[in-house]
Amino acid sequence: MTSLPPCSVSAERGCSAGELAAWFGGDLSGDPERRGFGLAPLARAGERDIVFVANERHLAALGDSRAGIVLMGQDMMGPDASDLSRRSYVRVDNPHACFARLSTLLGTRRRFEPAIEPGAVIHPEAEVHPTARVCSGAWVGAGSRVGPDVYVGPGVFIGERVEIGGQGYLYPGCRILDEVRLGSEVILYPGAVVGGDGFGFAQDQGEWVKVEQLGTVIVGDRVEIGANSTVDRGALDDTVIGDGVKIDNLVHIAHNVTIGAHTAIAGCVGVAGSARIGSHCAIGGGAGILGHLEIADHVTILAMTLVTRSIREPGRYASGVPHQGARDWNRSLAALRRLGRREG
Amino acid sequence: MTSLPPCSVSAERGCSAGELAAWFGGDLSGDPERRGFGLAPLARAGERDIVFVANERHLAALGDSRAGIVLMGQDMMGPDASDLSRRSYVRVDNPHACFARLSTLLGTRRRFEPAIEPGAVIHPEAEVHPTARVCSGAWVGAGSRVGPDVYVGPGVFIGERVEIGGQGYLYPGCRILDEVRLGSEVILYPGAVVGGDGFGFAQDQGEWVKVEQLGTVIVGDRVEIGANSTVDRGALDDTVIGDGVKIDNLVHIAHNVTIGAHTAIAGCVGVAGSARIGSHCAIGGGAGILGHLEIADHVTILAMTLVTRSIREPGRYASGVPHQGARDWNRSLAALRRLGRREG
Amino acid sequence: MTSLPPCSVSAERGCSAGELAAWFGGDLSGDPERRGFGLAPLARAGERDIVFVANERHLAALGDSRAGIVLMGQDMMGPDASDLSRRSYVRVDNPHACFARLSTLLGTRRRFEPAIEPGAVIHPEAEVHPTARVCSGAWVGAGSRVGPDVYVGPGVFIGERVEIGGQGYLYPGCRILDEVRLGSEVILYPGAVVGGDGFGFAQDQGEWVKVEQLGTVIVGDRVEIGANSTVDRGALDDTVIGDGVKIDNLVHIAHNVTIGAHTAIAGCVGVAGSARIGSHCAIGGGAGILGHLEIADHVTILAMTLVTRSIREPGRYASGVPHQGARDWNRSLAALRRLGRREG
Repeated sequence: MTSLPPCSVSAERGCSAGELAAWFGGDLSGDPERRGFGLAPLARAGERDIVFVANERHLAALGDSRAGIVLMGQDMMGPDASDLSRRSYVRVDNPHACFARLSTLLGTRRRFEPAIEPGAVIHPEAEVHPTARVCSGAWVGAGSRVGPDVYVGPGVFIGERVEIGGQGYLYPGCRILDEVRLGSEVILYPGAVVGGDGFGFAQDQGEWVKVEQLGTVIVGDRVEIGANSTVDRGALDDTVIGDGVKIDNLVHIAHNVTIGAHTAIAGCVGVAGSARIGSHCAIGGGAGILGHLEIADHVTILAMTLVTRSIREPGRYASGVPHQGARDWNRSLAALRRLGRREG
Repeated sequence: MTSLPPCSVSAERGCSAGELAAWFGGDLSGDPERRGFGLAPLARAGERDIVFVANERHLAALGDSRAGIVLMGQDMMGPDASDLSRRSYVRVDNPHACFARLSTLLGTRRRFEPAIEPGAVIHPEAEVHPTARVCSGAWVGAGSRVGPDVYVGPGVFIGERVEIGGQGYLYPGCRILDEVRLGSEVILYPGAVVGGDGFGFAQDQGEWVKVEQLGTVIVGDRVEIGANSTVDRGALDDTVIGDGVKIDNLVHIAHNVTIGAHTAIAGCVGVAGSARIGSHCAIGGGAGILGHLEIADHVTILAMTLVTRSIREPGRYASGVPHQGARDWNRSLAALRRLGRREG
Repeated sequence: MTSLPPCSVSAERGCSAGELAAWFGGDLSGDPERRGFGLAPLARAGERDIVFVANERHLAALGDSRAGIVLMGQDMMGPDASDLSRRSYVRVDNPHACFARLSTLLGTRRRFEPAIEPGAVIHPEAEVHPTARVCSGAWVGAGSRVGPDVYVGPGVFIGERVEIGGQGYLYPGCRILDEVRLGSEVILYPGAVVGGDGFGFAQDQGEWVKVEQLGTVIVGDRVEIGANSTVDRGALDDTVIGDGVKIDNLVHIAHNVTIGAHTAIAGCVGVAGSARIGSHCAIGGGAGILGHLEIADHVTILAMTLVTRSIREPGRYASGVPHQGARDWNRSLAALRRLGRREG
């Protein structure tokens, strides 16, 4: 579906059930001319809204919904005929992905008009594309380039010699430090920090001596970095975030980490220095990944797992411990300690 | 004690020992006219200060303190008579809660004069109550309403169509995105982000397609959200934080989570999407709560526990592992692995 | 090496191989007049660059490097003679520490000219040293003092009665709240928050009553606090961060914690209230330290360990669980639960 034909769907025009079916290669039941202008959850949807039903469990709730157009799976039980008088159905292979595509076309949250607002601080040696918007309180340093259709929110900081690719959206208060390069269609959420110094020190007679971090961060296309997440610049070489990588909130990526394309990292994960994570991986929330190791492509790490050595094979890996009642858990712990002593 | 009679205590007036005893329904020993104007720790207190003694252990340190008024428990050993010449004692049922109430009345940290400072950016279609203060570098978007006696610190971002209830205090650099609704007396600490996009993507041929997050965040009254914590907006429905909820620093609340009233969440906790946490719960630091599960009211989760399935009964739950010497711990781990293989 | 003689190395002058050998007390091979002006990784170095080789593994890559000067260990295998025609070698005891010292002298990342930029908000009762720089969008409150050679980046917030020692570097968007005191040569990274309220509440009939946090945060000399980390102010007494402490990103330090000198704390660590951590400790990423306990000097805590009680002896402590394949791990978990039941 990645290569869908272009379409003219927008929040103003909306789209008809027939257009949707054609666009997604789906099957239509009901009036092809019925139009939807927005997306909504089942319970809140009105007759100008499109809903999607991801699985059979939600079909019951559909009965009470006023939604005008329903996106659903090919394999799901169909509507009864009486329903078709008030809404149209489009059955597709991957309703969630279709809904996702639609959501961007119909959404209006990240629209803006080009402008340099008063109160924006732009260095005379920075280049801002005329189709970009730079809001009040944003700062763009010397030698930096802000590409076409980029939104730079209030309080965003862009250091020196930074490159921001086209169609980027920099939410208020994210910070991009010197020499960082962002690809196109990158979204940084509020408080994200890209290019802070890596945690690099040399030991010298019991004190830590700072090692200047000479690398930077290279971020691919269509990457998202969540609110208050941090990606450190490399010590000598660069930290590299591949195309299509999605990073949730409060994630820490240390210096010289590389993350392969289309890997997703859930909230509160920490990745230590020089770890190399493959493509198409999924890292569960709260996981920790030690430094200087490699994780193959297509690896799934479950929540709160500690990855301590390289993972060479695709598959699912875990070390998170499910909760028990506190008393039961204490018994398990005591038994484990005894076992360790006995067998040690 | 929640319904204490109104009182006229303030940092300027201070309060007398007699007033305190009457207000809290406590017992007085010593001069009822002795006045306190501030709160202090035992070691630093002067004769115009009020201290509180939470347990018997601290009574010894009291001897050297110059504090003029002492709040203590009804059940604690009393002062000797010689002490009463230099200070007054008020014995109450819950000295910590009394101290807390007093601390807000006598505190001056969050006082301010109403003003719109130069350098504040307020959209012409936003409404700011005349008793609010909006500091330089703050931003209030179209259609947003800032209630009475609200402080909006420097660098605070308030998006569009946001509602901020009365008596709110928005510390410098917190960010509140479009359509978020905060109740009254809400405190957001620096760097807190409310209403960032939930981490929602559809898989399509190995790539992640962004799903626009159409819901928002509804925050109740008297909620606190700690420094650099993040609360994501809902995917379709809303994320909901109940009245009186207290959230510490660096906590991540994902989309469509609901948290019941008066639940407290310690630092570094992550709560995954659509989890439903009950009222009066206490979640220990570093805990992780998986998505799409329910936790009953009055549940305590100990530090660094991973909650993997619904918890139906009040009580204490755990899976955190206490530290051992590294060698002992390695033995326990080796024994556990052998056990798994033997019994698997 | 802490007491190296002063030297005149700078990014403009660079330094010669002979100067380096003399300065570090190292052994020189090759031309003493060869000059280096910057540091670089082996692969990117040019003939005016200095590289360092930390261990034998990297010697192979050195062959292809164009670097002009090489810092390496005394104990490493030397270059062959043909190499000396194109570069000079300086052998030292601690090449990493030497590289670190050099990196600061040759680095230019944190240079600035003194200035108060337009758009900076400085209270008339604040004192800013004439050698400091305060950038646009920064804020300095009443009674605060900013020392010599301090950089206050865009969007930095400094509250009231704050002290910032000399040579400090406050990256864009860090926040320092009322009464906090920073020593000299302190670096705060973007989004760091120092002096937010501790998480202090009294229980009163099922509701949480806020306890005003009357202490502050005292930060020693040469401390670094990472991006989006948070250090809370004390409840009654102060939170104290010792000299030379290095704190990585997304670390949470609760109220009344004390951290001894030269302790390093990796990313995503949480330290609960009133914990006392010794000097020269190393706390691994994602570790959690409970409150009201003590950790001796020279203690190492491994990644994702939960410290639940005081540690009196130096050494290494752990409770993190290394990942396994998910199926193997489930078997281990099941065996552990059975064991707990059997022996409980």
